[in-house]
Amino acid sequence: MRTVQLTVFWCFLVWMPGALGWSAMNGVLWPQPQKVIRSAEAFTLPRSGFRIEHGPGSAAGANCSVLQNAFRRYYLLILPRRVGVNHVKSSRKSLLRLLVSVKTAKHCAEYPNLGDSEAYHLVVQQENATLTADNVWGALRGLETFSQLVSEANDGSLIVNKTIIDDFPRFSHRGLLLDTSRHFLPLYILFQNLDAMSYNKFNVLHWHIVDDPSFPYQSVMFPELSNKGAYNPATHIYTQMDVAAVNEYARLRGIRVVPEFDTPGHVQSWNKGQPGLLTKCYAGTKPTGSYGPVNPVLNSTYNFMKRFFTEISHVFHDHYIHLGGDEVDFSCWRSNPVIKDFMAKMKFGTVYRKLESFYIKRILDIVTANKKGYLVWQEVFDNNVTLKADTVVEVWKNPHFDVELSRVTATGFRAVLAAPWYVNVIGYGQDWRRYYMMDPQNFKGSEAQKKLVVGGEACIWGEYVDATNIMHRLWPRASAVAERLWSDGSVNNTTKAYPRLASHRCRMLMRGIPAQPLFVGFCEQEYTGGWAKR
Amino acid sequence: MRTVQLTVFWCFLVWMPGALGWSAMNGVLWPQPQKVIRSAEAFTLPRSGFRIEHGPGSAAGANCSVLQNAFRRYYLLILPRRVGVNHVKSSRKSLLRLLVSVKTAKHCAEYPNLGDSEAYHLVVQQENATLTADNVWGALRGLETFSQLVSEANDGSLIVNKTIIDDFPRFSHRGLLLDTSRHFLPLYILFQNLDAMSYNKFNVLHWHIVDDPSFPYQSVMFPELSNKGAYNPATHIYTQMDVAAVNEYARLRGIRVVPEFDTPGHVQSWNKGQPGLLTKCYAGTKPTGSYGPVNPVLNSTYNFMKRFFTEISHVFHDHYIHLGGDEVDFSCWRSNPVIKDFMAKMKFGTVYRKLESFYIKRILDIVTANKKGYLVWQEVFDNNVTLKADTVVEVWKNPHFDVELSRVTATGFRAVLAAPWYVNVIGYGQDWRRYYMMDPQNFKGSEAQKKLVVGGEACIWGEYVDATNIMHRLWPRASAVAERLWSDGSVNNTTKAYPRLASHRCRMLMRGIPAQPLFVGFCEQEYTGGWAKR
Repeated sequence: MRTVQLTVFWCFLVWMPGALGWSAMNGVLWPQPQKVIRSAEAFTLPRSGFRIEHGPGSAAGANCSVLQNAFRRYYLLILPRRVGVNHVKSSRKSLLRLLVSVKTAKHCAEYPNLGDSEAYHLVVQQENATLTADNVWGALRGLETFSQLVSEANDGSLIVNKTIIDDFPRFSHRGLLLDTSRHFLPLYILFQNLDAMSYNKFNVLHWHIVDDPSFPYQSVMFPELSNKGAYNPATHIYTQMDVAAVNEYARLRGIRVVPEFDTPGHVQSWNKGQPGLLTKCYAGTKPTGSYGPVNPVLNSTYNFMKRFFTEISHVFHDHYIHLGGDEVDFSCWRSNPVIKDFMAKMKFGTVYRKLESFYIKRILDIVTANKKGYLVWQEVFDNNVTLKADTVVEVWKNPHFDVELSRVTATGFRAVLAAPWYVNVIGYGQDWRRYYMMDPQNFKGSEAQKKLVVGGEACIWGEYVDATNIMHRLWPRASAVAERLWSDGSVNNTTKAYPRLASHRCRMLMRGIPAQPLFVGFCEQEYTGGWAKR
Repeated sequence: MRTVQLTVFWCFLVWMPGALGWSAMNGVLWPQPQKVIRSAEAFTLPRSGFRIEHGPGSAAGANCSVLQNAFRRYYLLILPRRVGVNHVKSSRKSLLRLLVSVKTAKHCAEYPNLGDSEAYHLVVQQENATLTADNVWGALRGLETFSQLVSEANDGSLIVNKTIIDDFPRFSHRGLLLDTSRHFLPLYILFQNLDAMSYNKFNVLHWHIVDDPSFPYQSVMFPELSNKGAYNPATHIYTQMDVAAVNEYARLRGIRVVPEFDTPGHVQSWNKGQPGLLTKCYAGTKPTGSYGPVNPVLNSTYNFMKRFFTEISHVFHDHYIHLGGDEVDFSCWRSNPVIKDFMAKMKFGTVYRKLESFYIKRILDIVTANKKGYLVWQEVFDNNVTLKADTVVEVWKNPHFDVELSRVTATGFRAVLAAPWYVNVIGYGQDWRRYYMMDPQNFKGSEAQKKLVVGGEACIWGEYVDATNIMHRLWPRASAVAERLWSDGSVNNTTKAYPRLASHRCRMLMRGIPAQPLFVGFCEQEYTGGWAKR
């Protein structure tokens, strides 16, 4: 090895005493549940005969789409099809059934909401294991945990130890931000990520769907937005069917889809299909031909936004829409004579943050009228825009995000932390350890304030990733964030986490997620990229 | 975009004025040839009818495996199979044939050698284009260039401009180091990389096949080396057939395969199947149970090495074997009483570099007796080991590689530069620009010294890469090194290179290499990862 980085040597030392290879299915859990009691006693899952079924007392039954779909999915993950593996005679007792019971079936045909229970109670015992949960979302989390408990013995049989697990998430918003504007991400990448998210108990897809470079969302009301603003309107777009498919694929995994339509900045691509929406920039008395943020002084702007966000409110089903509001550059507004007149008329002086707030307030009102809540980037809060009580403020600025968390929660708003988890910003070595050490409640504030931090997000901005590299760059690095957001705060030792995460990574490979290696070593079943295993 | 890195903004500015998308087949050349004259006149390649054939005066014919294989390969690359593309009537004249002529057919059934001519002369004219070269290696380079010249017009026809190209490489050793010990790389990854290398005119695969963590090479003489030293002797090994397949796959692309068997350090995995080969480390008077470098004081060591390297000399066909010799840690030797006795007997005092040189000298003699040449890492030169005149010294240490290049070439040895091109060491942003700016002849020395720098290598050490992520991490970042090593030294402007490299990356995608994006944008044909294009 010819690198001078000390971290490498240090990691090597950590790694050397352990095993070189990580079994892909060895019963390791990720993220770590709140409470686990495992016994040495093990049961066999018969490859023919094992079933996942509704428990006798469950409120849900065969018409519960979420559970029916999950039973099949986890059956296939737990009992992968293999050629040549026959029934193995074992002296162990058999586990014949996992019985899944929920107290209410009301979410079976609904979308998950921020704050919904995801708690579950799992008892693996002979001969029926039981999984009980408040609702189907908790059942999904428990199914994932159960699937992770099952491992393959040397004789080819599937085994699971006698286990009792009580589990619930530490935070209720555990998000992943995907950016489909800087590079278009095909649907299969969104689906693959939703799968990977479910394997890591993430529950929010923050879909940063449009931005400056391209507008791939195909609007019904304003089709010219993508006709003119997409990289290629024939191939680089999300149709209404696509969005519906993503919403449903996510729902079946208990994952919320929160779309972001960021304004008034980050909107260059909007102007192509909606001319006049953006502010014309001036040099002296003449337009330069370039455009700045949304033009906030025209009625046409708000007429458009009202129709546009009304569509969005119906197309996306989560209670929340992310309205952006970050990084607004005032220089173009300052150059424009009509904007300057408006500033004078409104008595804003030269404080363009007041103009920004004026704009944002009206957008918030539009969204509120559609009975939706909103998330905003921290600038909206920083600029003292009046916000609804259920607003969630997303904190993204480094390095003083702890101060910002204090401020946001002191005002009584809920916060989501993204700043330390910009996983697009890669570095050499095991940067997952840095992500893992961050704690969203590590700031000065009361217990009540700490509780207002509802979670965090791993963000992978799209400058340098597309379908070629986004999967391995995200996984398993985002898994570190997943455990931080689910498990107890005391689960924060990277040395202890390493072998579990390495094993979890091999399991993701087995499940078709091309997660990259943490460090030197191997998986029993390596990635084959669709090639024959040779 | 929420990143504070200035580079990003700078790149954005560079990129904004240009096109957002890069046509995958727009006739862009990479690496840039030495001399190109392109005319506006264009010809059509009829989708049925165009042929690549031996020229009438060529020394090679239908029994030349290298060219026959290349003709088929490039025919498929130039005329990809498409559904629904019919013959397009065009007013343009047709180009019916590419006639390929070589002055000698002697390499048709041979392996390439360091210093073999790769020059070619390409004339694209109506109605027969001609490609002439000294030998088949030059013909291969010219075929790649011709394939890059062909682009697809909007009407679906394939067009190529009237062009004259005179081309040859600036450096004769243009290598890529792959490390198959820290992570095993399956055969298909080696093949994919050999394909990508040919698209970038690389001509040396430096196969760092074994190292501390694992020993995947399956030796005929010493099968226990991989039986005990591989991660998994059933799956994580290279059989003799595999090595032969890699050698031949490379040969057909004019690529040398230089295996590295690094000793006396980096050998932990050897001891498992060859007990007694390594030095026992001591604490005081007792062995600690751990091992250091190869034990250089035993006859059994040299008996083993003689038999082992004799096998290697036959299994690999290149004139050169890389013998390593880097990063030898003396602490274990210092602790061992038998080694200390030997040091005293040899009058080495406590200068363990003398012991290292003693060892290396004997290994060099073994390889020389097998009529092979060798490459070594720079430490071997630094330690004043007596080297054969044809030795190539590989310079890898940062940051003063220019000083080392001066020293090595001043002594009359040839040098290969790797130091600035450790592409495994990733950072955020467009690090290809840094690789691109490096010049292997940018050191203090005479013209004669400069000429002794025979090339360079892009190295991707295996700590953090395996089959999941190595392809996109390498490509197109290694392409920057490829152009530096092939094109004239004056071709070094990253702003000019950017659109060509972005386009070349899209072309690699089209050809099945999952090269990652350089920055914001898109390709007309995106990576589909084997999924249906939807």
